[in-house]
Amino acid sequence: MTITPTGEGLRRALDGPFHTQKQRWRDEVGADDVVRATDLSMEEAREWALDKLTVLARRNFVTAGFPAAQGGTGNAAESVANFEMLAMGDLSLVIKSGVQHGLFGGAITNLGTQWHHETFLPGAIDASLPGCFAMTELGHGSDVQSIETSITWDPDAGEFVVHSPTPTAAKAYIGNAASHGRMAAVFGQLWVAGEHHGVHVALVPIRDEQGKAMPGVTIGDHGHKGGLLGVDNGTLSFEHVRVPREMLLDRYGGVDEDGTYHSAIESKNARFFTMLGTLVRGRICVGGGAASAARKALSIAVQHANRRRQFRQPGLGEEIPLMDYLQHQRRLLPHVARAYAYGFAQNEIALQLQRIMDDQGRDAQAARELETRAAGMKSVLTRWANDTLQECRESCGGAGYMSDNGITMARQDADIFATFEGDNTVLLQLVAKALLLDYKSTWGDMDLAGTAQKTAKLLGSRFLERTTARSAIDRLVATAKRKSESEQLRARGWHVEMFEYRERHVVEGLAQRMRAAAREKSFDAINACQPHMIEAAKAHVDRVVLEAFVEGIDECSDDYVKALLIKVCDLYALATIEANRAWFLEHEAFDARRSKAITSAVDALCGELRPQSLALAEGLGVPQEWLVHPRRAVPPIIESAEPVSDERELRRVS
Amino acid sequence: MTITPTGEGLRRALDGPFHTQKQRWRDEVGADDVVRATDLSMEEAREWALDKLTVLARRNFVTAGFPAAQGGTGNAAESVANFEMLAMGDLSLVIKSGVQHGLFGGAITNLGTQWHHETFLPGAIDASLPGCFAMTELGHGSDVQSIETSITWDPDAGEFVVHSPTPTAAKAYIGNAASHGRMAAVFGQLWVAGEHHGVHVALVPIRDEQGKAMPGVTIGDHGHKGGLLGVDNGTLSFEHVRVPREMLLDRYGGVDEDGTYHSAIESKNARFFTMLGTLVRGRICVGGGAASAARKALSIAVQHANRRRQFRQPGLGEEIPLMDYLQHQRRLLPHVARAYAYGFAQNEIALQLQRIMDDQGRDAQAARELETRAAGMKSVLTRWANDTLQECRESCGGAGYMSDNGITMARQDADIFATFEGDNTVLLQLVAKALLLDYKSTWGDMDLAGTAQKTAKLLGSRFLERTTARSAIDRLVATAKRKSESEQLRARGWHVEMFEYRERHVVEGLAQRMRAAAREKSFDAINACQPHMIEAAKAHVDRVVLEAFVEGIDECSDDYVKALLIKVCDLYALATIEANRAWFLEHEAFDARRSKAITSAVDALCGELRPQSLALAEGLGVPQEWLVHPRRAVPPIIESAEPVSDERELRRVS
Repeated sequence: MTITPTGEGLRRALDGPFHTQKQRWRDEVGADDVVRATDLSMEEAREWALDKLTVLARRNFVTAGFPAAQGGTGNAAESVANFEMLAMGDLSLVIKSGVQHGLFGGAITNLGTQWHHETFLPGAIDASLPGCFAMTELGHGSDVQSIETSITWDPDAGEFVVHSPTPTAAKAYIGNAASHGRMAAVFGQLWVAGEHHGVHVALVPIRDEQGKAMPGVTIGDHGHKGGLLGVDNGTLSFEHVRVPREMLLDRYGGVDEDGTYHSAIESKNARFFTMLGTLVRGRICVGGGAASAARKALSIAVQHANRRRQFRQPGLGEEIPLMDYLQHQRRLLPHVARAYAYGFAQNEIALQLQRIMDDQGRDAQAARELETRAAGMKSVLTRWANDTLQECRESCGGAGYMSDNGITMARQDADIFATFEGDNTVLLQLVAKALLLDYKSTWGDMDLAGTAQKTAKLLGSRFLERTTARSAIDRLVATAKRKSESEQLRARGWHVEMFEYRERHVVEGLAQRMRAAAREKSFDAINACQPHMIEAAKAHVDRVVLEAFVEGIDECSDDYVKALLIKVCDLYALATIEANRAWFLEHEAFDARRSKAITSAVDALCGELRPQSLALAEGLGVPQEWLVHPRRAVPPIIESAEPVSDERELRRVS
Repeated sequence: MTITPTGEGLRRALDGPFHTQKQRWRDEVGADDVVRATDLSMEEAREWALDKLTVLARRNFVTAGFPAAQGGTGNAAESVANFEMLAMGDLSLVIKSGVQHGLFGGAITNLGTQWHHETFLPGAIDASLPGCFAMTELGHGSDVQSIETSITWDPDAGEFVVHSPTPTAAKAYIGNAASHGRMAAVFGQLWVAGEHHGVHVALVPIRDEQGKAMPGVTIGDHGHKGGLLGVDNGTLSFEHVRVPREMLLDRYGGVDEDGTYHSAIESKNARFFTMLGTLVRGRICVGGGAASAARKALSIAVQHANRRRQFRQPGLGEEIPLMDYLQHQRRLLPHVARAYAYGFAQNEIALQLQRIMDDQGRDAQAARELETRAAGMKSVLTRWANDTLQECRESCGGAGYMSDNGITMARQDADIFATFEGDNTVLLQLVAKALLLDYKSTWGDMDLAGTAQKTAKLLGSRFLERTTARSAIDRLVATAKRKSESEQLRARGWHVEMFEYRERHVVEGLAQRMRAAAREKSFDAINACQPHMIEAAKAHVDRVVLEAFVEGIDECSDDYVKALLIKVCDLYALATIEANRAWFLEHEAFDARRSKAITSAVDALCGELRPQSLALAEGLGVPQEWLVHPRRAVPPIIESAEPVSDERELRRVS
């Protein structure tokens, strides 16, 4: 399948450092390898996912993140890029891989030590040892620190005893549990000689070679879900299940042969967050995977809108393609622009992840920044993906509702991305807390009454520190200030200023409110700040994404493509400002007249980009042949009419 | 299942004139009758829907809308209420009934004459004659007037010839076509003796008694869809299929035995819109059905949020119920308020429909107003329902994604409600056109330069004429004007003023732009007004809904419930103003300070209503036992552990 030179150029720019790797998927992976038929039963879908996963692992498409000693490249950024590509094929398949390679394999890689790597990673990689990541419990989803499962050291037997003390301690929604899993990485509270050491992870065999549950292990099946039918989510409960001492993943804490607990990290709390920190890749993958599904839906919807005609121009014969209608452009093109913005931001965070991994956690501040960004991007991208998939479905009309069209299944699968790997609402509050911490480390406990004067100092501090393209952005902001008001609407520097103003102002206001609330020491006072926290987190992510887009444009060497991307970035920036214009008006960042001018500018940009809509869709990088989801039973016509051959046929009237 | 007195009182108020009828459903219809198991295959779901439909028809739950002569009550409002109740059970089932009774049966009732009623309605009602409503074509969905199917009079044979001249003429997405339909009401262009008379409808047998396609009829199966698996949507094509003269539904136009076309309506265009006008009940049902699904999801989500606890208050032991978090209240309670608002508005439009039916179309203006309102409400309610279902799913976390939880299936089924019975975007433009017409009939072709002075006159005119509770609202507006600024936020009169100001201002602005665009005579100029048209339609629906809420409160005789509903209406009104505050700020309806005060007022109302959240959910009227969607295979535990009984059990450590 050839694409236009513009589409190809856009694709290169958006793939960025991962172009070669992503192109390998497009060249070598066919629809048969990754596209699920639309009418598989749950059981069939589960078998399909395991089967395809095994093949992809054998073909070395999903192993990048593992240590070199086990045949991987050890490159976490590449594993994110692989995840994004596979997500364009099928989300059940990518989540099956995410469970097997990312979570189960990742827990062994990141929380285990050499013996665990050598013993279990080969099977984790080639999926001959299907594994579970048993963290979430029925009673505690988001609040991992409160899980009830216990891992208790039995000094007499020299074993750990894994136990679910209550019904709510059952591990829930666990992928690979219901059908395929043989082993689980089980999160539980570690007790050694009556002392509590916080959450640790033990590997526990859950099924024998015949697929029968191991003694003491009770396995449940969540059955049918709102999507991801190919992933066999289930429950796991443990009734005093014993595992040898070696089965504890002991990189951050373990028990010696003589029964002494040891850990390089003193504080229980710090240990917990260090261990959870290793999950950051999963969050980055989930955000990127959701964005891939949105890109696929946008590709389908933009092609449909260019093909489908409906209603005539008054007085003219020709029916009008949907893409010509302003309202239809409004439905799709800002989402296309956003897909580019998030794509560039995804590339950046993947590279950032790799830097942290290479650094082996020496720069704690950088690691914390990555966690904050991953949490924020995961929330914002998965929310956007769900909205976009729905908009694309509806903009394809009835055709969009037919499963063969490819959107509905992705929509159903992506739904849960808003919840798993951290509930979006919880994650955005984590982001806000980190922003407040940065803010506080800059401002200390100064009285914030006269913030206006102090604000000027902020730009030199860690808070609001630009993450990329620093000098380029400074130049843009300086240039924008010299422009006339009407020119500013398309001046990147003005966009950056608005994004920064919003983030700064929202965080400052939040800091003041939180300080007052802390003095009150009441739940109500802090609770009242919750929506403000979420607003702060979103403003932060918007700003970081805009910077990544600027950086991405800066690195594009094709002038034609670059000029196009500048317009796309204009649309991203202005549509984001437009969506938040109530806030800007409330805070007098601009007046009513300019607010209306922004809406007009978004309309105008939609019209300007409309002729390039197909190329822009190509640039999103989804292989054309992956866009259609076939049914197993191919023929759409189930009952063929017999030819009308009686004598009346001869008297045809029309 | 007993409910609280407050819940019961709210239920009575919201059921309004349909309380007895709706209560009969709650008392007599069990979950087994209307709740679908979550894991049925497409084939099983289709058979389930037909089976349950037949039983409900026999028990006289879905026949209200048919003529008394055929055993119905002839009461269209009751048929809407039945639709709403059934939609709380299962959307596949209600759409199957909608296709069979509402569309197929409705076409015969409304477009046919006595012979059609006597011959076909008994089978349409008891579902022994499963029928299709074959309007939409592959090439033309929203643009019905451009359909290609022809119905041509053959004078020699005295028959009509139904024909699909091109592949795009195939009837598409037709419910009952793929599996069960025996007959179809086929929309086509009528040709008699070379003269074109516009779109008419003929009854065409499509399958014989053995279920085999009739000669000349080609039937396709759309297969798996994004939802509504219980509805067998398919395609129908006709190869010169002949039907007797009597099979044309000839209430608004037919052919005499001598081959002469006759119609009481002169203009082809007027005839088309009169025939399509009879579809208005379908739109009203679809809006109400989507709202029912949203009510069900809200019932589930509010109960979950009261039950589920997560995270502790710092320093306190007790975990906090989700419903206590402001952000969670923000996610659910404004939707609950909206469910009440739309419920009252739905009651009103159902009664309005009944008045039009009783009036037999004599008041053309009233009929047109009903069509406008139905189009607007359908769009706004289905959009809201989709958003609400998604919010409810996410607010239940991982549990919300399990199909047994009851939300995901409704979410998938409701998706297409945004598209069928009129695409939402197209319908909102119809509404805007009607508003412009009303506006023009008030203002004529006057120069609009000095609108400000003229605006005052508008309130006495048809444009913006209040539809209900006229004097009560006038009183409220007058009272609000005397209140202090801070009191106004909870003054209904101020809400009404804001809603009216927005509608009036948006429509006035649109009228000016459209007039200028008409002068330019270019597609681009009119196209540029599209988002403005949609804004006008939404503003109109918001205002009409608020008035209906006021009316509903006015009619409530229980003082405690009334006081609660006043708060719920405050939340509906303020949340709507808040959502549109960018517009209000741009048009200087209020300033930045008040805008922020509105957000605080919404927060406060959420807190005030939180203690009543369970009762408010009960008031939505969904039977408790319909909330859970069981799997066929009941036991959640598929693999039971063997008891751990070896000697180590004796050495339990935890």
